[in-house]
Amino acid sequence: MPRTAREIRLKSRPVGMPAPENFELAEVPIPEPGPGQMLIRTIWMSVDPYMRGRMSDRKSYAPPFEVGKAMDGRFVGEVMESNGGRFPKGTFVAGMGGGWKEYHVADGKGLFQANPDIPLQAHIGTYGMPGMTAYVGLLDIGQPKPGETVLVSAASGAVGAVVCQIAKIKGCRVVGVAGSDEKCAWLKETAGVDGTVNYKHHKGADALEAAIAEHCPDGVDVYFENVGGDHLTAALNLLNQHGRIAACGMIARYNDADPQPGPPNMFLVVGKRIRMQGFIISDHNDRIPDFNRDMAQWIKEGKVKWRETVFEGLERAPEAFMGLFKGENFGKMLVRVGPDRA
Amino acid sequence: MPRTAREIRLKSRPVGMPAPENFELAEVPIPEPGPGQMLIRTIWMSVDPYMRGRMSDRKSYAPPFEVGKAMDGRFVGEVMESNGGRFPKGTFVAGMGGGWKEYHVADGKGLFQANPDIPLQAHIGTYGMPGMTAYVGLLDIGQPKPGETVLVSAASGAVGAVVCQIAKIKGCRVVGVAGSDEKCAWLKETAGVDGTVNYKHHKGADALEAAIAEHCPDGVDVYFENVGGDHLTAALNLLNQHGRIAACGMIARYNDADPQPGPPNMFLVVGKRIRMQGFIISDHNDRIPDFNRDMAQWIKEGKVKWRETVFEGLERAPEAFMGLFKGENFGKMLVRVGPDRA
Repeated sequence: MPRTAREIRLKSRPVGMPAPENFELAEVPIPEPGPGQMLIRTIWMSVDPYMRGRMSDRKSYAPPFEVGKAMDGRFVGEVMESNGGRFPKGTFVAGMGGGWKEYHVADGKGLFQANPDIPLQAHIGTYGMPGMTAYVGLLDIGQPKPGETVLVSAASGAVGAVVCQIAKIKGCRVVGVAGSDEKCAWLKETAGVDGTVNYKHHKGADALEAAIAEHCPDGVDVYFENVGGDHLTAALNLLNQHGRIAACGMIARYNDADPQPGPPNMFLVVGKRIRMQGFIISDHNDRIPDFNRDMAQWIKEGKVKWRETVFEGLERAPEAFMGLFKGENFGKMLVRVGPDRA
Repeated sequence: MPRTAREIRLKSRPVGMPAPENFELAEVPIPEPGPGQMLIRTIWMSVDPYMRGRMSDRKSYAPPFEVGKAMDGRFVGEVMESNGGRFPKGTFVAGMGGGWKEYHVADGKGLFQANPDIPLQAHIGTYGMPGMTAYVGLLDIGQPKPGETVLVSAASGAVGAVVCQIAKIKGCRVVGVAGSDEKCAWLKETAGVDGTVNYKHHKGADALEAAIAEHCPDGVDVYFENVGGDHLTAALNLLNQHGRIAACGMIARYNDADPQPGPPNMFLVVGKRIRMQGFIISDHNDRIPDFNRDMAQWIKEGKVKWRETVFEGLERAPEAFMGLFKGENFGKMLVRVGPDRA
């Protein structure tokens, strides 16, 4: 058992795209679990686009990270010691509080025990927050009906890939937009979507719209929004009457130092009676039991598959995070912080 | 009884702002009502912003007006002859089909008999489609709770003024944005809103936002959208978590020959979990009985008041219509086509 552990701190707030100098690797003593606490070793940690918002100090749904302190995020880890904490030594757990740190102490509130039938890292991927985001965003916010067309941006990402596959399970036509031919091939061949568009081959909203339209002979009924920018403009033009936009994220906008113009066709929401609904997954915890039941079943039946991109070592977490905004991840972006078994 | 009557036709489709040369006044024989038909004399006709959409030939929820044919819109009129039509001679009726014409024949389908307790012209105003739009848009789409803050753009218009007053009846704080000090004074003194902003004194989205913010110490919960452009940008910044946008119209955009950039802050819909919902009043006919009951009561009790701007004579209808886009109307824009009693 080591005496010290590493963590990654926010060194300064980024302006525009995050850069290596915004992060700092620090070495700290491994904390002792107090009464009612556990010492947890991080195995996997998640980097997610929403963390970019927490690196800024503007008011949002989650408090900003503090400069000089460790960043946080979802993790999967192992209970190394339990001083009367919620889980005994040897339990594999997932939750918040241990991201960007090799070790941390916690009382276990908000953590949950890993499902032994599911790979550990999927607890922060398809069987975790990104999968739950796809589930609630598509089913509860987008409300697709069988036979409808669902358009998914960032379709091979941790959320998008699950949206595509749930939409197929629900009997929809699915069109995915992604950023490489390899991602598009995986979406068609493995995720089973009906049509794909590599947006890098179609510059500008008009070209993107035309490319998507080829795969949407009956228009678009639900647009699952992960990107913003030209993707949103194209989707507004393609949406049918009573179309829905499940607004999960707009990654194209997260690093704008200055505001960029929005879609020139927002007025279409009136005539087409479009409903655009933003959502944050933590509002929907009442759906966790449904999600866990359905997703465990779909994974077991091979109906939901995933890809992951793994960076080895906590020190590479900033690199993994920055890669999200360049589309370097194929599926869930993960950092392996330690081995599965200590 | 004259032998001929006038109508106004769409002569050409406008590019950008409609101009006099897009309209044509024609004289036609007064039609004979066939079996099951009535001859109706138009008394009042409505000009509404949505008609701009029907002057273009792009696909929308309502079919485009045909070039060379009379335009259409809501009217109030008198049945002059009934050849077995739905209403007897002498009945005052309101509905579609008689707008932009001095006389027309109809079987009466879709028309309704005027309520004798309500001024005739209010059947195409506060007690008609604009009032119904305000009622459904605010209550069903915006869903304000007592104590919440409702922000209304084009607040002294035919729809906006009713939104403001229903929101007050429902116990909300109401802030109205309008285009003159006179309109703002009416909103405060007669409609009873809590705060007003004359947008002409505050150029640009930032200045507009700051001016509105002064009246919204607790932010904005429901934004009733009639305008778009800077108004929408400001509202997105001011909306609270779980805010709602009832998207009724975006008049600032209707005459753009070229697309204009949209709000640079659309991404806020995600983090604030905003629901933006476009609506078209004809989807909500199931609410007509509720609306008629409530609005008749509110008018009787003096809880809902209105202003109107009247142009005299069918030939002035294009002028009245074009005035809508310059904010020349104070309340409902009306054209008096004929006297109340023939």
